[in-house]
Amino acid sequence: MRILDEAAIEAIAIGAAILGTGGGGNPYIGRLRCQQELKRGRQVRVVTLDELPDDARVVAVGGIGAPVVGIEKIRQGEECLRAMQALEQLTGAKMDAVIAFEMGGSNSMAPMVTAAQAGIPVVDADGMGRAFPELDMTTFSIYGHVSAPAAFADDKGNVTVVQAAASEKWVERIGRATAIAMGGSAGSAIAPMSGAFLKRAAVPGTLTQAQLLGEAVLHANRLHQNPVDMICAREGGRRLFEGKIVDLQRRLEGGFARGELTLEGFGQNTGERGEIVIQNEFLLFRRNGVVEAVVPDLILVLDHDTGHAITTEVLRYGQRCAVVGLPCHPLLRTPEALQVIGPAAFGIADVAYRPLSSSQPG
Amino acid sequence: MRILDEAAIEAIAIGAAILGTGGGGNPYIGRLRCQQELKRGRQVRVVTLDELPDDARVVAVGGIGAPVVGIEKIRQGEECLRAMQALEQLTGAKMDAVIAFEMGGSNSMAPMVTAAQAGIPVVDADGMGRAFPELDMTTFSIYGHVSAPAAFADDKGNVTVVQAAASEKWVERIGRATAIAMGGSAGSAIAPMSGAFLKRAAVPGTLTQAQLLGEAVLHANRLHQNPVDMICAREGGRRLFEGKIVDLQRRLEGGFARGELTLEGFGQNTGERGEIVIQNEFLLFRRNGVVEAVVPDLILVLDHDTGHAITTEVLRYGQRCAVVGLPCHPLLRTPEALQVIGPAAFGIADVAYRPLSSSQPG
Repeated sequence: MRILDEAAIEAIAIGAAILGTGGGGNPYIGRLRCQQELKRGRQVRVVTLDELPDDARVVAVGGIGAPVVGIEKIRQGEECLRAMQALEQLTGAKMDAVIAFEMGGSNSMAPMVTAAQAGIPVVDADGMGRAFPELDMTTFSIYGHVSAPAAFADDKGNVTVVQAAASEKWVERIGRATAIAMGGSAGSAIAPMSGAFLKRAAVPGTLTQAQLLGEAVLHANRLHQNPVDMICAREGGRRLFEGKIVDLQRRLEGGFARGELTLEGFGQNTGERGEIVIQNEFLLFRRNGVVEAVVPDLILVLDHDTGHAITTEVLRYGQRCAVVGLPCHPLLRTPEALQVIGPAAFGIADVAYRPLSSSQPG
Repeated sequence: MRILDEAAIEAIAIGAAILGTGGGGNPYIGRLRCQQELKRGRQVRVVTLDELPDDARVVAVGGIGAPVVGIEKIRQGEECLRAMQALEQLTGAKMDAVIAFEMGGSNSMAPMVTAAQAGIPVVDADGMGRAFPELDMTTFSIYGHVSAPAAFADDKGNVTVVQAAASEKWVERIGRATAIAMGGSAGSAIAPMSGAFLKRAAVPGTLTQAQLLGEAVLHANRLHQNPVDMICAREGGRRLFEGKIVDLQRRLEGGFARGELTLEGFGQNTGERGEIVIQNEFLLFRRNGVVEAVVPDLILVLDHDTGHAITTEVLRYGQRCAVVGLPCHPLLRTPEALQVIGPAAFGIADVAYRPLSSSQPG
């Protein structure tokens, strides 16, 4: 068990933005809320999966809704806590710990806030090891967890519980419609999971991974070293491209930010062309027309000079970027997982998943 | 207590369509489902408000969603029952009886089906005495009932409960979004009400009223008498106009069927012009530009020859109609009620509610 201080939370926010692979929302506001909890004298305690008893009751929490709304809509601050409490009331049992749906983006912060408010620890793990757009795209759902009853709470006092669902996809559909009705975003909590299940099904160590990534960026900037090199070295990441954004197409389709990004290479990629397919997250990278990385592997678009993540909503013409590929966790590469989070699940029908190898030359 | 036979159910369906004032959906499919329950050997038992013990637990049920979807989407058949059962499970107590949200339109039938399936009686009363488009426009909500926890169930096995709501309007908003996510329609059930509360807040005798209206229509057609005269005589209705539809504007706006209908008078209205404002229901009637009836009073558009209701979705150019006004129940005319279901609540800002008087010459 360890206790996070403000500096740790700052680093986690930076690292979680990187793990967001363009999506998942910016963790900045969540970071402020989390640090606010510390100022109130509350603690963010972290336990590893190993430290978790097999019979622990662990609830996954996070925001649901468009990240853009999440930035502009003022939160009441206890949305996820209320969703968790609705489940406690329904099941008649207290939760022992909180876990993140996704460590990528702003949903890295929500569980820490809830944990601090409830006085219980947050688990150093998550259900995606990155960000994905839908609630059912977690290793929890993929490896057999039934999310219902799942609770959704807003800033006004509305609380809804999906008590039974025909499938995990239906929890996502009804939950998302609820969040939209609640004003575009809501706090959510799904049926508790056991410690034993999480040891098998959660992506381990991702809170620490985010923290180390964030510290690498801060460290490199302080020492005027190359942050992209540091990220690749730390995580076995592979430098896919460096270039300038010369074309950007973004459109809102069916609630998703879809589009395509074109980069003109410089440095070692001079004369080359990079292309990235976007659906909330960066899903596919092509160099000179050849696919070099595809979802569920992580495609990071970083500011070339600072190493900070560039999320899809702040992309713009002329930005100088480094594109880095990170191999995803093995739990995301199984046949069951690829059915839910592989290229075909995102409508990329003509590309089969080929695992990105670690730290090979680009 | 009385038991309904197939003929009674047929009459109720005809009368409920008339009480729907153009909206509420066509009760025809509900009637078939209800009669199907009888064929299975189940009973539809009706109790009056007087017969209901003060401490009876009564649940209001009905479909929520666009009536158009309700016609085309095949039901599993136990949606409202499942919604009711979710509340029973949540509150740990069995329901003693079922009541309709609205007696106008197809939601007159749903409680009878649920009552037959659950083996409990249906109350001869409802929360509207007609049809209105939204769940919070009931005398239950107007006179202080808190609808949460409210349950919504679909044909696929999905069940959602709005456990807490900031207001009755929020139950409607979240419930409707849920119904849309569930495919456009769902069965719903709101928190149980006591017999004592319903004696004060429900519109009494409306199931019997629908039955008598339907029987009047059937009777008149059998005897070649004028059905519109019979309806007016039975209910203290006022003949507002007879004419032919010469113009019809209908558009779907914000989930509502809005529009305006123009009639060219014949018979005693020869040379006159009638106009009706539509928002799912018929809200306002003008003769030669002068308002003669307005919501919450009932404006019926009937087939001139058969006396059957013409609902907004089947209006068409050239139809010969009788327009009849029925005074609404006093519970709909109080200042509290008019705030929720008066003209201003439907965006008719320039017309103050003036009660329609009974059976005056047109």
